[in-house]
Amino acid sequence: MRDLEELKLRVRAFVAERDWDRFHSPKNLAMALSVEASELVELFQWLTEDQSAALDSARCARVADELADVLWFLVRLSDRLDVDLLEAAERKLAANARKYPADLVRGRARKYDEY
Amino acid sequence: MRDLEELKLRVRAFVAERDWDRFHSPKNLAMALSVEASELVELFQWLTEDQSAALDSARCARVADELADVLWFLVRLSDRLDVDLLEAAERKLAANARKYPADLVRGRARKYDEY
Amino acid sequence: MRDLEELKLRVRAFVAERDWDRFHSPKNLAMALSVEASELVELFQWLTEDQSAALDSARCARVADELADVLWFLVRLSDRLDVDLLEAAERKLAANARKYPADLVRGRARKYDEY
Amino acid sequence: MRDLEELKLRVRAFVAERDWDRFHSPKNLAMALSVEASELVELFQWLTEDQSAALDSARCARVADELADVLWFLVRLSDRLDVDLLEAAERKLAANARKYPADLVRGRARKYDEY
Repeated sequence: MRDLEELKLRVRAFVAERDWDRFHSPKNLAMALSVEASELVELFQWLTEDQSAALDSARCARVADELADVLWFLVRLSDRLDVDLLEAAERKLAANARKYPADLVRGRARKYDEY
Repeated sequence: MRDLEELKLRVRAFVAERDWDRFHSPKNLAMALSVEASELVELFQWLTEDQSAALDSARCARVADELADVLWFLVRLSDRLDVDLLEAAERKLAANARKYPADLVRGRARKYDEY
Repeated sequence: MRDLEELKLRVRAFVAERDWDRFHSPKNLAMALSVEASELVELFQWLTEDQSAALDSARCARVADELADVLWFLVRLSDRLDVDLLEAAERKLAANARKYPADLVRGRARKYDEY
Repeated sequence: MRDLEELKLRVRAFVAERDWDRFHSPKNLAMALSVEASELVELFQWLTEDQSAALDSARCARVADELADVLWFLVRLSDRLDVDLLEAAERKLAANARKYPADLVRGRARKYDEY
């Protein structure tokens, strides 16, 4: 797999071959994406933060699998709405740089609450 | 933004400049990803499926913004766990092709329940 | 089961007998609640709205099961934080009555956007 | 507020006065419930587990508010599908007692993985 563009085209073909476009309203795709995100959360919910940073290889493989599912629906929904994901990410990085200036945020005890 | 690799490096630098690594346990990042996925769902929840496929440009921009937030945490969590997202997506496409054979699935009235 | 109070006490006993309190930080319980909420969503995601209002009895039983799981963690988390759920619901109803005045909201084409 | 039954009737009246039944397909209500669950998660996502167990009163009030929102949609969806929440909870407690026998589970290092 070379890049997001190739993934988009392969997912699109996969869906067309199964005649699944009729299920893929943006509303349904957003739901499906959030369900996959929760399957990811489920793998971490009873672990401590330290345990979550030291997964054994079996659990890490399951995590990779869920990450792929999230990406699948993210790419599919973006394609359906004609959104360029990398452009959107670029805009977001710029917006976040303004919202969280490094010199103000750095060293705060909490993540967002205090400046 | 050229590709996922560049996004990964820029997100990594963004986080380092703010000293946010200490908040970014895989457990926390999975939670944050699912919260962003729900902010995406929120934009669709009271729309019909047809309305969700005909968004005006203001709402579509908000959707693109939420898609970028999901991608942000997806890339960040993958980096944290050393998972190659495109490789994982490739494996998943192959697994799904075996799980949902096009000739069996095509034309079924429901998506998954009936074969 | 008589009421929420009895459910709270029975869930508390269930958890104590298994020595599960050590897993039940409010953070973890909130994650678990959201995972159960997504398992509920999963049962609806590829249905149309009309289909979701005409479930067969097998699927309705699965939905009831997931609703019970959500309630379980809702009651557990409230107990852990010493929150009285019915009091909180009473306050919320009053707040929502102020936020969405019936005579302004009634008959609008969209749910929240237009007044 | 006396009990869940009273809450159900008051929520039902609240919705009827606003003519919101037409938005309340079970599918939409399940989505809304999961969105509220994520707003709850958001309040905990960057806290440690210890911090989540020692909330200040301002944050605890926000948590109570989100718990009430989850309960609102839980009661609404159950009403819409004619599910008795306390009966479903009773069945679930019995099923979980069989699934996680106290004498087998007690004292395990991980929550679910090892018996």
